[in-house]
Amino acid sequence: MNKRKGSLMSVRNDIKVLDATIRDGGLCNNFNFTDEFVTELYKMNVKCGTDYMEFGYKASRNMFKESDFGKWKFCKEEDIRSIVGENPTDLKIAVMADVGRCDFKTDFLPKYESVIDMVRVACYIHQIPAAIEMIEYFHELGYETTCNIMAISQANTEQLSQALEMLSQTNVDVIYLVDSYGSLYPENACELARVYLSAVEDTGKQIGFHAHNNQNLAFANTIETMSYGISYLDATVQGMGRGAGNCALELLLGFLKNPKYNLYYVLKFIEKYMIQLKKDGVVWGFDTQYLLTGLLNRHPREAIEFTSLEREDYSEFYKTLLENY
Amino acid sequence: MNKRKGSLMSVRNDIKVLDATIRDGGLCNNFNFTDEFVTELYKMNVKCGTDYMEFGYKASRNMFKESDFGKWKFCKEEDIRSIVGENPTDLKIAVMADVGRCDFKTDFLPKYESVIDMVRVACYIHQIPAAIEMIEYFHELGYETTCNIMAISQANTEQLSQALEMLSQTNVDVIYLVDSYGSLYPENACELARVYLSAVEDTGKQIGFHAHNNQNLAFANTIETMSYGISYLDATVQGMGRGAGNCALELLLGFLKNPKYNLYYVLKFIEKYMIQLKKDGVVWGFDTQYLLTGLLNRHPREAIEFTSLEREDYSEFYKTLLENY
Repeated sequence: MNKRKGSLMSVRNDIKVLDATIRDGGLCNNFNFTDEFVTELYKMNVKCGTDYMEFGYKASRNMFKESDFGKWKFCKEEDIRSIVGENPTDLKIAVMADVGRCDFKTDFLPKYESVIDMVRVACYIHQIPAAIEMIEYFHELGYETTCNIMAISQANTEQLSQALEMLSQTNVDVIYLVDSYGSLYPENACELARVYLSAVEDTGKQIGFHAHNNQNLAFANTIETMSYGISYLDATVQGMGRGAGNCALELLLGFLKNPKYNLYYVLKFIEKYMIQLKKDGVVWGFDTQYLLTGLLNRHPREAIEFTSLEREDYSEFYKTLLENY
Repeated sequence: MNKRKGSLMSVRNDIKVLDATIRDGGLCNNFNFTDEFVTELYKMNVKCGTDYMEFGYKASRNMFKESDFGKWKFCKEEDIRSIVGENPTDLKIAVMADVGRCDFKTDFLPKYESVIDMVRVACYIHQIPAAIEMIEYFHELGYETTCNIMAISQANTEQLSQALEMLSQTNVDVIYLVDSYGSLYPENACELARVYLSAVEDTGKQIGFHAHNNQNLAFANTIETMSYGISYLDATVQGMGRGAGNCALELLLGFLKNPKYNLYYVLKFIEKYMIQLKKDGVVWGFDTQYLLTGLLNRHPREAIEFTSLEREDYSEFYKTLLENY
């Protein structure tokens, strides 16, 4: 378990890359992507060899008003189909369902009626029992499932080991280590990776990593945890995602040696669509305020507010964070 | 040698942080910093506990016209003194001397007549004999010395092992692993770190790391190689440095646990001076074009040109790089 799996030159066929641009990036623009953007991103993912594309959340329409968000907050079957048709490709389609914020018993079709392949259940560590109920429900419906345990840098060792023990006995396919606050360093990210990998040994389950870039470590943590055996890797184009964003897909595909991945199409997409998005005022990515919340292992909400107010008084911001530690 | 030295919670007293903002950052603005900027950066370094501040190059005034550059290309004794006086602080002062581009026999005073503490000799691997001549000369004069072997990702194993063997028999104090092209990943950076560390075992010499951020790995590679025993760590404020820049000082000081380092003063400096520098049009930092040269393990010059032309056609740029591989 302490040894690296594969080398910098080798191909690991267990690796799966998931593009979460619409889902995590949607948190930057309230899911207001044009249909052209989503269609072209889908085509890009097919061409560049990505394994999964996450279209967004399946959020409760009872809890959230549809008119307040773009459609990818809700990922209705007909909206996904309007982009992918019957999805006659090798790219699999994922959606995210948050524990407590989705009507899972009414909003999901049986797999054989849906183009969705995988449902990713996101929860905090105290919600594991609720997550398991959803996972088993989605598994019954015929979907691949993941459990994305968020904010893992704030969970304690006992909680985590119990959560992993519980999950290892379910039908979940992939358990994700999610560094929501971007506060992990390669060293402790890899230690955590080993805990997850040990917990699922001999179960056939896989471990995934979802990084945030608060300390400019999203890509580094992704490839380092990968080198110890993590195989499901989340990324977004140009790292587009909440606050400091995620691991950039172009960095990850550049790194991976499997010839099925092709960086060229990501570059094409960046120049045609991402640059415009930034020019239109959508903001994300590493900045000093995110470094500070990441360092202090806390939710980036104060840094996001600092960004939206266009503040530049980092030292005052740091003082305030320390005062409210 | 395979074990990490210290932990994420501990203080390592062998760690030295060197601020290279003026020297590497000077490559972004032709060394045209105001005296106020340099004076305040010096004060910042004193307050935030940095161990060394590199003021610039000691470039040959026969080879380079003084009027073509800011004064930190030449680091005359009187110019440094105009900022630091007698430097009555714990902060040590470094300058860089490039092999073949400096008049070392005429441009250096004996240490007892100079406020400079350390001379860093930069060379490519085939210049090691010339570097050693300079190192021994500076050592004789009374300075601390380093040898910064640049572009190490292009050196072969035999060259490197011979270079390290030769250097281990000199009076050099620190040997630097320099990832000039930002093409190392944490995994191979750490393997290289182990090679360097083995070579100087029991000699009392230290190993340093100088990172570039082409693949957004400058900070990650710095702390990862550090964890295996590298102790001299280069950083620049906001990563200011050629092309994609360096390891950001604020990330590094946030990470280090020694209470002598104080992040607050770096934040103060950023808000007061660095933001203005960027507004004035000085450009550096991670961008897609640097990822591409880093990935292909080559000099960033084409990416720097791409940047200065404000090009956005990444896919064409990538094609051209591949054609000229």
